[in-house]
Amino acid sequence: MTTSAPDGFQHLFAKVDELESHFINRLRRAIRIPSISAYSESREKCFEMAQMLQEEMTLLGIQVQLKDIGYEKHTGLKLPPIVLGRYGQDPKKPTILVYCHYDVQPAEKSDGWSTDPWEMTTEDDGRLCGRGTSDDKGPLLCWLNAIEAFQAAGMDVPVNLLFLFEGMEENGSTGLRAALEEEASQFLADVDAICISDLVWAGNTYPSIAQGLRGVLFYVLDVTGAEKDAHSGSFGGVLSEPMSDLASVMSSMVDSKGRILIPGIYDTVRPVTDEEKDQWEKLGLSEGDLVDSINGRSLHSDLIEGLVHRWRKPSLSLHRLENAAPGAGATTSIPAKVRGKFSIRTVPDMDSAEVDKLVQQHINTQFRSLGSKNSLQINCVHQSDWFFEDSSHWSYQAAINATRNVWDHEPGLSCEGGSIPIALDLKQVLKKNVLLLPIGRAGDGAHSINEKLDKIN
Amino acid sequence: MTTSAPDGFQHLFAKVDELESHFINRLRRAIRIPSISAYSESREKCFEMAQMLQEEMTLLGIQVQLKDIGYEKHTGLKLPPIVLGRYGQDPKKPTILVYCHYDVQPAEKSDGWSTDPWEMTTEDDGRLCGRGTSDDKGPLLCWLNAIEAFQAAGMDVPVNLLFLFEGMEENGSTGLRAALEEEASQFLADVDAICISDLVWAGNTYPSIAQGLRGVLFYVLDVTGAEKDAHSGSFGGVLSEPMSDLASVMSSMVDSKGRILIPGIYDTVRPVTDEEKDQWEKLGLSEGDLVDSINGRSLHSDLIEGLVHRWRKPSLSLHRLENAAPGAGATTSIPAKVRGKFSIRTVPDMDSAEVDKLVQQHINTQFRSLGSKNSLQINCVHQSDWFFEDSSHWSYQAAINATRNVWDHEPGLSCEGGSIPIALDLKQVLKKNVLLLPIGRAGDGAHSINEKLDKIN
Repeated sequence: MTTSAPDGFQHLFAKVDELESHFINRLRRAIRIPSISAYSESREKCFEMAQMLQEEMTLLGIQVQLKDIGYEKHTGLKLPPIVLGRYGQDPKKPTILVYCHYDVQPAEKSDGWSTDPWEMTTEDDGRLCGRGTSDDKGPLLCWLNAIEAFQAAGMDVPVNLLFLFEGMEENGSTGLRAALEEEASQFLADVDAICISDLVWAGNTYPSIAQGLRGVLFYVLDVTGAEKDAHSGSFGGVLSEPMSDLASVMSSMVDSKGRILIPGIYDTVRPVTDEEKDQWEKLGLSEGDLVDSINGRSLHSDLIEGLVHRWRKPSLSLHRLENAAPGAGATTSIPAKVRGKFSIRTVPDMDSAEVDKLVQQHINTQFRSLGSKNSLQINCVHQSDWFFEDSSHWSYQAAINATRNVWDHEPGLSCEGGSIPIALDLKQVLKKNVLLLPIGRAGDGAHSINEKLDKIN
Repeated sequence: MTTSAPDGFQHLFAKVDELESHFINRLRRAIRIPSISAYSESREKCFEMAQMLQEEMTLLGIQVQLKDIGYEKHTGLKLPPIVLGRYGQDPKKPTILVYCHYDVQPAEKSDGWSTDPWEMTTEDDGRLCGRGTSDDKGPLLCWLNAIEAFQAAGMDVPVNLLFLFEGMEENGSTGLRAALEEEASQFLADVDAICISDLVWAGNTYPSIAQGLRGVLFYVLDVTGAEKDAHSGSFGGVLSEPMSDLASVMSSMVDSKGRILIPGIYDTVRPVTDEEKDQWEKLGLSEGDLVDSINGRSLHSDLIEGLVHRWRKPSLSLHRLENAAPGAGATTSIPAKVRGKFSIRTVPDMDSAEVDKLVQQHINTQFRSLGSKNSLQINCVHQSDWFFEDSSHWSYQAAINATRNVWDHEPGLSCEGGSIPIALDLKQVLKKNVLLLPIGRAGDGAHSINEKLDKIN
């Protein structure tokens, strides 16, 4: 690997190259442990994975403790521990808290994988294929690789590192928030900045660093008519039908171009500046990149407008319109009770409470205008705020410089369309700058089949 | 039982009263046979039921044959026979073909029945409770009861009777149409008029006779976007979302008052005359009656307008809006492919082909107006025409007179909102007047729990 990085780093990079097969073997061993947090029967594998991390980290001189966070309420199962680590405690250096997770999504060869998801393969084109390579065992172990390379090069790591690796990320991060609050004034007391490595580049070609996440409000909408489903022969036309009401109300909220039709919803949306759009040009994305991962059709806009939609505009998606009556039966029935599910993604500077008010107002107005005899209930069942970080902070600037040095390309500042709840939690509890530093690429297929990480990443 | 019927009939009615417990016991024996045609494992019970009918009918001097109609294609199971019977062959009398069915809907006590559905109970208020009491073993056996009462009274049955009892009605009437066509010039060659006893009164208080059925067109609507479901965080707002398109198109077809919004759909609907509305006043219905059976809210119109909606106006019901992608997953996903199901009930004098044209036109126009990048496919998967019979025919007039004599109340001429496919089949194959003669009442709960028939019916 040759780059235009400062001279001292060439030596470090050479060590990385020397250690390559060692790093790959360590990742292979990690991938072999199917630490699926969502399945009770594989919960013990999460403990095995925590154990492996403890051993590997200890070998590198990291002080490790496995923090017991108790039991999972609904299963009674023990929660996988949070792996806490400390490397260096020099008061002259800044202290960076690194967050990753060591649990993974489920995977089975029969889901459509080309190879065994739990036996990592190294492909000729540099892909390392297996469940967890990109999300998030690969990025996690990169931090250990970095320390090992510094040690091999005889160089001093320029920061103190704290590690917080959790084992329940893919299952709701149960117990994490409480643990954070507990450790805020203990193990995490001297954190100066936070770095999350649980995301990917915005594209597949050039590196990027993320500074924003969208928030989300998730709604459940119930429309109830009779107590029983009705036969459409006997009752078609006679009653206000809940499904018609629901389809009407839900389709009144968004159009096919993704424009939300709820009055006032865009009022507080922060405009995207030309500078930001310039940043996005650096990402080297094509219009196809935005929809490739789902084999989608073309965007309903150009590339930059597509990015504005993904990162900086609110969106409203209709997820389900379901027959909600118990024992829902024949497809010729008129469902007596139906349930709609939709979510709104929020962006700076929207206020969740204000959005909720506008949504409720709009739905109630629309429903009243139908003149229906049915009843309607709106529930906002989940809510988390958007996140947008100050990229002029030294931590972001350091990450931008380091990325430029390694990749010989100025990284663009991107956002994520989705949420990373831990980012908000860390921000709220520790009140420090949170850097979103991707390791893998957009097309890695986290949560999907044939997940991979490119060796070079 | 005393009525204002002609004197000779008082003697007949007395015999009916005398034979009451015998009739009830026969029905109880029939109810004990769970002849559920929809379940493979209870198919043999349909044969047992056919056997019982053959025995009972033979005892009454009816010539019976069990017509073998072959095998069911997808299960390879033998189809229950059609029970054909002949009682009387006097060329001076008219010959009436009676259609009923001896199979029943599934039922389990745990569905919410107050009593064992297969052990008929006789309640103090006269209800006979059990699966099949009203649909359709009770009505079927009423015809045997009638012959038996005539015999006991030493009276001559004034018509020749042909019986056609099928055992697959609740499972699509497989094999019936072919059998009808085969027997049209054989066993059924001398039919003068047809009588179907597989329906109920329009209400719960007064008897009625039905002369019309609505037709139906059932549609499946597919909207396809990407190949895979997309995460709403990453893709919300970026793509044309199939569910939004579907909800928008489907809600554009009907309003909450049951009015179909497809241009031209009402053009050929036959107006309801004042005479017809007068008939309906005789039915003794209340607004509550129309929605009681589903514990529904009040109608969106008055009673007569409600009946117009049920019987003589087309209706459009939205049944389902489903995620149609294989392995449809998280509720926060944007479904890549969605499927809508809806049906239109048709009435005189709508033409099904013309309706289909209007529906396709409307949907295509609506979809185009969305400017969506997704694709849409419309399939009309089932179609059957409406049915409306001439009630001035002697068969209807005889039924009206007989009903008046028995119940001391002028029966109203009603319709059914649903379809009875056999009515159309019989009409098309035998080309004779088809009388729709109900035995039970609207609230009997056919297909539902706690099905009953009132003893007096």
